[in-house]
Amino acid sequence: MTKPSLPQGTRDFGPDVVRKRNYIFNTIRNVFELYGFQPLETPAMENLDTLMGKYGEEGDKLIFKILNNGLDNADKEKQIREDFEKVLQGKNVKGITERALKYDLTIPFARYVAINHNQLSFPFKRYQIQPVWRADRPQKGRYREFYQCDADVVGSNSLLNEAELALIYHQVFTQLGIKNYEVKINHRKILTALAELCGGAEKMNEIAIAIDKLDKIGVEKVKDELKQKGLNENQLTVVERYLAVEGNNSEKMDALNTLIGTTESGRKGIEDLKEIFNNPHLSSISYQLDPTLARGLNYYTGIIFEAKASEEVKIGSIGGGGRYDDLTGLFGVPNIPGVGISFGVDRIYDVMEELNLFPDDVHVGTQILFFNLGENESKAAFTIMQQLRNKNIRCELYHENVKFDKQFKYAEKKNIPYVIIIGSKELEENTCTIKNLLQNSQQTISQQELLNYDF
Amino acid sequence: MTKPSLPQGTRDFGPDVVRKRNYIFNTIRNVFELYGFQPLETPAMENLDTLMGKYGEEGDKLIFKILNNGLDNADKEKQIREDFEKVLQGKNVKGITERALKYDLTIPFARYVAINHNQLSFPFKRYQIQPVWRADRPQKGRYREFYQCDADVVGSNSLLNEAELALIYHQVFTQLGIKNYEVKINHRKILTALAELCGGAEKMNEIAIAIDKLDKIGVEKVKDELKQKGLNENQLTVVERYLAVEGNNSEKMDALNTLIGTTESGRKGIEDLKEIFNNPHLSSISYQLDPTLARGLNYYTGIIFEAKASEEVKIGSIGGGGRYDDLTGLFGVPNIPGVGISFGVDRIYDVMEELNLFPDDVHVGTQILFFNLGENESKAAFTIMQQLRNKNIRCELYHENVKFDKQFKYAEKKNIPYVIIIGSKELEENTCTIKNLLQNSQQTISQQELLNYDF
Repeated sequence: MTKPSLPQGTRDFGPDVVRKRNYIFNTIRNVFELYGFQPLETPAMENLDTLMGKYGEEGDKLIFKILNNGLDNADKEKQIREDFEKVLQGKNVKGITERALKYDLTIPFARYVAINHNQLSFPFKRYQIQPVWRADRPQKGRYREFYQCDADVVGSNSLLNEAELALIYHQVFTQLGIKNYEVKINHRKILTALAELCGGAEKMNEIAIAIDKLDKIGVEKVKDELKQKGLNENQLTVVERYLAVEGNNSEKMDALNTLIGTTESGRKGIEDLKEIFNNPHLSSISYQLDPTLARGLNYYTGIIFEAKASEEVKIGSIGGGGRYDDLTGLFGVPNIPGVGISFGVDRIYDVMEELNLFPDDVHVGTQILFFNLGENESKAAFTIMQQLRNKNIRCELYHENVKFDKQFKYAEKKNIPYVIIIGSKELEENTCTIKNLLQNSQQTISQQELLNYDF
Repeated sequence: MTKPSLPQGTRDFGPDVVRKRNYIFNTIRNVFELYGFQPLETPAMENLDTLMGKYGEEGDKLIFKILNNGLDNADKEKQIREDFEKVLQGKNVKGITERALKYDLTIPFARYVAINHNQLSFPFKRYQIQPVWRADRPQKGRYREFYQCDADVVGSNSLLNEAELALIYHQVFTQLGIKNYEVKINHRKILTALAELCGGAEKMNEIAIAIDKLDKIGVEKVKDELKQKGLNENQLTVVERYLAVEGNNSEKMDALNTLIGTTESGRKGIEDLKEIFNNPHLSSISYQLDPTLARGLNYYTGIIFEAKASEEVKIGSIGGGGRYDDLTGLFGVPNIPGVGISFGVDRIYDVMEELNLFPDDVHVGTQILFFNLGENESKAAFTIMQQLRNKNIRCELYHENVKFDKQFKYAEKKNIPYVIIIGSKELEENTCTIKNLLQNSQQTISQQELLNYDF
């Protein structure tokens, strides 16, 4: 007999949690649909080739690989032994694994577009809400199986898309009741421009990683780090001026223009940002140009986003995204530019719990529990129940005739708001007693009235 | 560069297919909720211990195992080598795999109940709609990754549950428009009784497997098979009489009663069936007592179900289920009886395609495409579009100003029913032209009227 347990870093979601998570998923899904995005689902498994080498060396290690079947096949033993030697030497692993669990939704999406590009009509706007798996060390808020929630447009260079994605953040957070969110915006070409002025474009990643820490370690330590990376005093002065850029969005744009507008990259970045900031609809949303925003993923080439919850909850990033020039190029289909965003659903869930933002009735599944008070009584209840179900009202008849207490307790534990009692007296009089457990009230009405009752 | 492909037996679901599948899932989910079932989600991964040994020897082989991470860890090499030897000898596999992908939803559900039984309120009614994985040889209609769709009640012996599950089949198929479905019902104890009369209860599986083939191979070959299994002529006569049971449900009940009602198992089986057949609500649904129905899974102990689509589509079983006495006993928590059913979503999808049962508008995502006819025109369109989106109308603005043809084609390929044109003339007059692509009609109205248009 097995003592049951769950794999580390994975979770069961019981009914209450599923309902709350679905509330978030449905809100996001509806907004994606309002903006013309279409659903896509790809399998949990991908060929190992599709995934390996796409997430850097560290990423490769975090991919969950699936054991090939047939390891118990004696005919194959020699081959398997040889392959296993290679695995132990850190080389090819094909002999024992050819498939893996997907690590994110972006690479499978690129793979899908590459396979189907001749059938798709571009721009192709898809959203995808599915689990992904990472063999990371589990810790608070970090899981080995978790949902991602992405929307991407591919096949369009228009900055209309960026404006709409920013509006999607606004609309989702507003509908969820997350008020003090902030969408930070930057442009990879602005970071490129800074790097060009500080020793060359190839330094961009190092510089981006350092300045991204400004909030945590302060300007002096950022400069120390960059000094170690070989930046000279002049270059450090440029970085310092860059980090000092402040004010409202248009003041920041002016300052950046002075600082990096002399480079081609800088000009292009500023131009793009201006275009989306000029969209009058963005004035109603809470976005902020943040020149230190970098986003880790190397495939971003244009505008980048990060969404944060309000300071009070200290939960950090609840979404991110950006523009990329050539994702499907990885799979032999070049020149399909795109832009996308993602929502961090686990963190959004935590924010909503902490700020008590879920609606009061998010727990309600069954609306009515019919008490079971004997054979004839429950037959009558069953008949009424079927009529209510045909009117799309969710109800249950308690499964056995036991005392009131136990039946009440069941209703309470299951968050059922109404209880209906048909005992021998009610049966005789064709009535029923409705108890509203939330308001602690009750009334007796005819069974006919019950069918038109406003639950 | 990788030439992209999908793992054998897995599928991408593009937008149209996802919408159709969601139509089925949502219908089933709503009916489950109408009957008081609550959602549960368990992880894709389970500990290998949880799954192994639960599906028979063949089943164990079909479980997809996940490779442990850290195979590239030099410190662990000796251990890994030793463990790998054991794998090659068909023994313990812990050193290289400790986790696996779930094979069905039932065992993870039992594991969940066993872990959480102190917190749950019984009867616990859960539904679960999630993918499962099997390393089966892929063929038409058989996949390595597919969805299961289950509802189970645990912690109740009441046959009310069986009656409701039969009604759920009826309600789901009716809502989906699948008219000539049939729910076959039998009772494992009736099969036990037959076996007891034919050489002993331990023969039940062999007898069940043989008589289940009646439709395909005919009565003589069934008898041949059973003769080889050691049944004597008297016993074969009993089987023949059993297979000859026919008529309507109550005639069949009478015949079975004569044949096997002398045994305790037989009496109990007939009693249970009588009770649920007496539920007046079942008279409206299409069910049929089928004494040859066996269902493969050994854990069934009571009433069993199988749902079939009409003969015309030749797709066979589209659902099944039954009662079990002690599923959580596998995980050390005995005495929690239960009953459940399952829907075969891939097959239901095929039935609906073949009979053309999906609603005409199942493809419609975006309702309106605004044409892009220049900078000022599209700015005006964008403003109207945001107002419509706030009214929950799904719309898009084409991403660039190109000729009409291309924009029309986009709308058509995406099944968008309305196109709205705001050109320079409309911009000046504050009007717009609406084209209904389905009806091939158009009209020009004021932009104010558009906001109250009934799409």
